[in-house]
Amino acid sequence: MYELLKKDGRAKRGRLHTVHGDIETPVFMNVGTAAAIKGAVSTADLQQIGTQVELSNTYHLHVRPGDQVVKKMGGLHKFMVWDKPILTDSGGFQVFSLAGLRKIKEEGVYFQSHIDGHKIFMGPEESMQIQSNLASTIAMAFDECPSSVADRDYMQKSVDRTTRWLKRCKAEMERLNSLPDTINKHQMLFGINQGGIYEDIRVAHADEISKLDLDGYAVGGLAVGESHEDMYRILDEVVPHLPENKPTYLMGVGTPANILEAVDRGVDFFDCVYPSRNGRHGHVYTKHGKLNLFNARFELDDRPIEEGCGCPACQMYSRAYIRHLLKAKEMLGMRLCVLHNLYFYNHLMEEIRDAIDAGRYKEYKEETLRGFETPED
Amino acid sequence: MYELLKKDGRAKRGRLHTVHGDIETPVFMNVGTAAAIKGAVSTADLQQIGTQVELSNTYHLHVRPGDQVVKKMGGLHKFMVWDKPILTDSGGFQVFSLAGLRKIKEEGVYFQSHIDGHKIFMGPEESMQIQSNLASTIAMAFDECPSSVADRDYMQKSVDRTTRWLKRCKAEMERLNSLPDTINKHQMLFGINQGGIYEDIRVAHADEISKLDLDGYAVGGLAVGESHEDMYRILDEVVPHLPENKPTYLMGVGTPANILEAVDRGVDFFDCVYPSRNGRHGHVYTKHGKLNLFNARFELDDRPIEEGCGCPACQMYSRAYIRHLLKAKEMLGMRLCVLHNLYFYNHLMEEIRDAIDAGRYKEYKEETLRGFETPED
Repeated sequence: MYELLKKDGRAKRGRLHTVHGDIETPVFMNVGTAAAIKGAVSTADLQQIGTQVELSNTYHLHVRPGDQVVKKMGGLHKFMVWDKPILTDSGGFQVFSLAGLRKIKEEGVYFQSHIDGHKIFMGPEESMQIQSNLASTIAMAFDECPSSVADRDYMQKSVDRTTRWLKRCKAEMERLNSLPDTINKHQMLFGINQGGIYEDIRVAHADEISKLDLDGYAVGGLAVGESHEDMYRILDEVVPHLPENKPTYLMGVGTPANILEAVDRGVDFFDCVYPSRNGRHGHVYTKHGKLNLFNARFELDDRPIEEGCGCPACQMYSRAYIRHLLKAKEMLGMRLCVLHNLYFYNHLMEEIRDAIDAGRYKEYKEETLRGFETPED
Repeated sequence: MYELLKKDGRAKRGRLHTVHGDIETPVFMNVGTAAAIKGAVSTADLQQIGTQVELSNTYHLHVRPGDQVVKKMGGLHKFMVWDKPILTDSGGFQVFSLAGLRKIKEEGVYFQSHIDGHKIFMGPEESMQIQSNLASTIAMAFDECPSSVADRDYMQKSVDRTTRWLKRCKAEMERLNSLPDTINKHQMLFGINQGGIYEDIRVAHADEISKLDLDGYAVGGLAVGESHEDMYRILDEVVPHLPENKPTYLMGVGTPANILEAVDRGVDFFDCVYPSRNGRHGHVYTKHGKLNLFNARFELDDRPIEEGCGCPACQMYSRAYIRHLLKAKEMLGMRLCVLHNLYFYNHLMEEIRDAIDAGRYKEYKEETLRGFETPED
């Protein structure tokens, strides 16, 4: 159950009650594709860096180790030893971006495993069954994520099918949640709005799916190549057509600036691979923008990545040491940068929540965006 | 200063007092080649797994980031944030095994960097200067590590030169320790016995270097391809010719069984890359021998790597989960296996010390060796 605690302009401050504890929103979910955050980050580390929700990928876990294995091990929470909320995606996005030859039919999608090429079928029911086996806190509906440059005609047909699939997802999830051997009988289901950059298709779809009384609603198919202006314009149009008293999730977004702008448009759930991927390449976030720790100017820099930062990297190590580790290809360098970046994102969300609580979100957003553009001394 | 606390047969139980704290021996030093343990292991992790001494490689740190950089950053302890003892090797072994084209002269060795091919000269004085810049707790003498199959004539000439180099190391270390801007003015120096598998050359060399009153003595040039029987035979002959009231260090050794046998022959310092290297490949140590976690039989195994083990991996995670991580090439899998293996070695040494304290080392050794040969239930 979602409580809308406060609004500041369109920015929402909420709390989602789940069987795995409460989620304070706006929240950034930390991406652990294959049931682990890339960069040798353990669940004990996640406690330290303020992670509220871990996000795992249904497609990846279905092909390895297999959702049946995870179910036999007691579900994802027990398997990866994380007792707070987990969101699983539907597998749809990976099927459309990673898998080999695929065929989309009314019943679902036929495709090949990216690991060994074996044939897999996934439709709405299969996606719900896999996510039920994984026993995540929140399951995502199985949708098609069409190219944002798909023509209008294709987009309309795709969105209509996504709506039909959503209804099948809802029915299947209700059935699964009532089975005796289901691990999490309170698994939530979020629907996904699609429609590319066609505002009218997006809005009509948002109105349609809002009627289904799901546990939350996501905006999908953005951050896939369109401009930031298009993304913000779509959010301006679509978010008012999604239920305010439900979580609003912008999938796969994004930079700290993207998040600040999207919160201002009523979004309160986010996820993105940027902090972990950038961290593995030595790119670290600060209040004064991103730093590339490979840069020679950090060779003798004995400051932490960011003064005053409470992350495990900044509490212990200098930029000079982390730069050395990165150059020597020591995994520890990647791990420290990933820990810092995830802490940075999680801490940014905490500041965002505090600013909304204090009724000063606009000022906070402007100050913070200005900081990102102002290099450090 | 080294205290010999107790002997049990030839097994020594000692304590080395250093400016960075006491080392209880027998001890296994954890190898962090480039100022970090491979496998994303941080110094905070080392505290948890019971590491007493970290070992770093002079050659690697000389070429990257450069010992001058480490000195400017306040020495290795400050750079890598580790306040307990650090031993640095002399660089000699790497010069002879890693570096490109090399020429050995009386003054030292001319060779090429394995990273960019640039020409480097290293002799006894240079090795001491680099190690003084790194400011380790214990420096190793610069020696030649000849092939164990070198002919007798070459071996004798090489060992004679190593003795001359050792005297130059000692003089240079004394000079460096008295300089005002030296970071660690109490840097210790261990000498190294060589001679391959020629017992008489080994023994004569041991007698010769024992006269120099160094802080400790190592047996080098073993574990480089000779049989275990040769190694034990050499130890049987040589250790009695090294001072009992000084640390006795067997370089680069070895398996848990090697360590148990060497302790029984009076060795009390060890180092080896096995636990971290094997861990990165999913091979983990237990009281019942090594397990390969890639094996399919661990797919649904919800036990820890070893029941009752106090390491961070066994405290949290199942074999099934770690196996999944390894197969998915998630760095966390490697990290957990490395943490387990280093803990296993460190804990083995603790048991060895307890057994010597209790005067039951022989029994402990036999029981433990039998366990290694007995597969788990």
